[in-house]
Amino acid sequence: MARSQAQVNVAILGATGRVGQELLKVLDERDFPLADLRLLASARSKDTTVTFKSKSYPVLEPSEDAFKTMDIVLASAGEEISKQLSPLAVKQGACVIDNSNAFRMDSAVPLVVVGVNSQALHSHKGIIANPNCSTSQLVVVLKPLHDVAGLTRVIVSTYQSVSGAGKEAMDELEQQTRAIVNCEDYKPKVFQRQIAFNLIPHIDKFLDNGYTKEEMKMITETRKILELPHLPITATAVRVPVVIGHSESVTVELDRAISPAQAREILADSPGIEVWDGPQEAVYPTPIDVVGEDPVYVGRIRRDTSSDTGLNMWVVADNLRIGASLNAVRIAEYLVEHRLLKQHIST
Amino acid sequence: MARSQAQVNVAILGATGRVGQELLKVLDERDFPLADLRLLASARSKDTTVTFKSKSYPVLEPSEDAFKTMDIVLASAGEEISKQLSPLAVKQGACVIDNSNAFRMDSAVPLVVVGVNSQALHSHKGIIANPNCSTSQLVVVLKPLHDVAGLTRVIVSTYQSVSGAGKEAMDELEQQTRAIVNCEDYKPKVFQRQIAFNLIPHIDKFLDNGYTKEEMKMITETRKILELPHLPITATAVRVPVVIGHSESVTVELDRAISPAQAREILADSPGIEVWDGPQEAVYPTPIDVVGEDPVYVGRIRRDTSSDTGLNMWVVADNLRIGASLNAVRIAEYLVEHRLLKQHIST
Repeated sequence: MARSQAQVNVAILGATGRVGQELLKVLDERDFPLADLRLLASARSKDTTVTFKSKSYPVLEPSEDAFKTMDIVLASAGEEISKQLSPLAVKQGACVIDNSNAFRMDSAVPLVVVGVNSQALHSHKGIIANPNCSTSQLVVVLKPLHDVAGLTRVIVSTYQSVSGAGKEAMDELEQQTRAIVNCEDYKPKVFQRQIAFNLIPHIDKFLDNGYTKEEMKMITETRKILELPHLPITATAVRVPVVIGHSESVTVELDRAISPAQAREILADSPGIEVWDGPQEAVYPTPIDVVGEDPVYVGRIRRDTSSDTGLNMWVVADNLRIGASLNAVRIAEYLVEHRLLKQHIST
Repeated sequence: MARSQAQVNVAILGATGRVGQELLKVLDERDFPLADLRLLASARSKDTTVTFKSKSYPVLEPSEDAFKTMDIVLASAGEEISKQLSPLAVKQGACVIDNSNAFRMDSAVPLVVVGVNSQALHSHKGIIANPNCSTSQLVVVLKPLHDVAGLTRVIVSTYQSVSGAGKEAMDELEQQTRAIVNCEDYKPKVFQRQIAFNLIPHIDKFLDNGYTKEEMKMITETRKILELPHLPITATAVRVPVVIGHSESVTVELDRAISPAQAREILADSPGIEVWDGPQEAVYPTPIDVVGEDPVYVGRIRRDTSSDTGLNMWVVADNLRIGASLNAVRIAEYLVEHRLLKQHIST
């Protein structure tokens, strides 16, 4: 297919999943300069087709040369598939933007939130990792504060929606809620416990240090993205009965004290952040306010009463967008714009 | 009415409310040594009767001599009524155990969680205050850690159930949830925002420092109960779509480091605490596990990765019991047992 310099061939790996669908939506909304689009998924999705911009695309199982002629692979098919197929895609000439945990802490792989550490993309070697959703919305807020006042400690407690656990988890919350209000039984299938009208302080596997993998991801990924390998940071990750939208109660300590008013100004001036913070008028973000929105929303900014240089804040974002699809497409756009695709690098 | 030395006359102010009902349940369960029981409520409850231990009691509007012959008044009728009637009750010879915010920070009034600072009861002057529910479960856990290792900082984020906001709030969560799963409209009446499938980082009024009154109560009440007036402590209070059971993500810093294993041992040996902490077997408390239970449950105890002397933990309790009824009745029992009623003190 003939194409202009700026147009790129994109494959989506895991095209029929929740994030795959969201990726297509974001590519469409942002009018991404697509030449060819290839939709890949496991055998389960065989014989299905997906419509994109009024055109029907077959969903293919990844063949041996699935990535040939592709410039970018947006991978959302889980850790194992990514580990298997990403090196192959790179060999065949594509850049892989991976949404899984497979390569995030690999020192050779940039872990990038566009607008926070985009410069790391300039040294990519073919694979680029997209951070965990709860990390992404956190670093968007931490970075501008760090730049002005120097982060010395971060303490986060999360309130994470079920959509972070996939489509089946969203169905489980709905069906279990329905069952409970109708006094019927509903045994958990996806979650370890009842999630409707309940909380589960357990996301992903438990590790030997008593943290969950989700919590350790937030800790290690934040350090890597901010290039602060020794940043004192801790996290508690809790699943809440909310459909979409992750919230975080964040306490930061800074090298030098800044007032809540200064923090509001710094954050409001940062790209990708909306400050909704008018306590007297009950202005603050809640999860249902942010569904389908791109920014990270910050409210409840106030002095930490337990530290002279601390601030507390409340950070809410649409985890499906900020955490996966939107940042992946923004990375793709950045690669195109800065001529960082394989075709550019190889010539 | 003739009565033995140990038997006491109790009035319940706000007897038909949610906490009033729970108070009666706890008095019954614990077989409190009641002589006379007087049930008081506002004019709205006129002409109703309440059954207690197979006996029917009329609900009376508080008259001018409503508290005469009473030894103890369990007050759960809100701040304004408490301010009005408590001095009168004391004048008429009763001790008032007040569940409202009216007297908690009054330096002449002991603010007591039995088992944490019961000794403060020995200097009461007639009125005793019962702390806010989110404070109670917190101090039960902080006290034994402080006694062994010295608290130097506390950071709490709460996940508070709607029952903390009263019966109408519980109804609103149920009705709003029903409406949403049936795709019907339901405008919030009790809460500032939609609470079903959502979170509201706003409990009680906002104050000038950007904190809510709920958050400042946790801060000031904890300092008073632990007798640590300068304890660095901060709180973020969030309402979650859970019916009963408050949860808290708690980070503490200590004078000297203790291991998670030591913390588990210290807490397990403390009265009123159950340690449920087996991450590898997914053992941790969730709100639905603790409904109707007396203890404070602690899990997810682990080293704070952001501090050498810090610990993180997850604290869950039935807010209706620990926060109001159970502690009020325990205070009453303590007064009887230690002969701290007015009749004892006056003689």
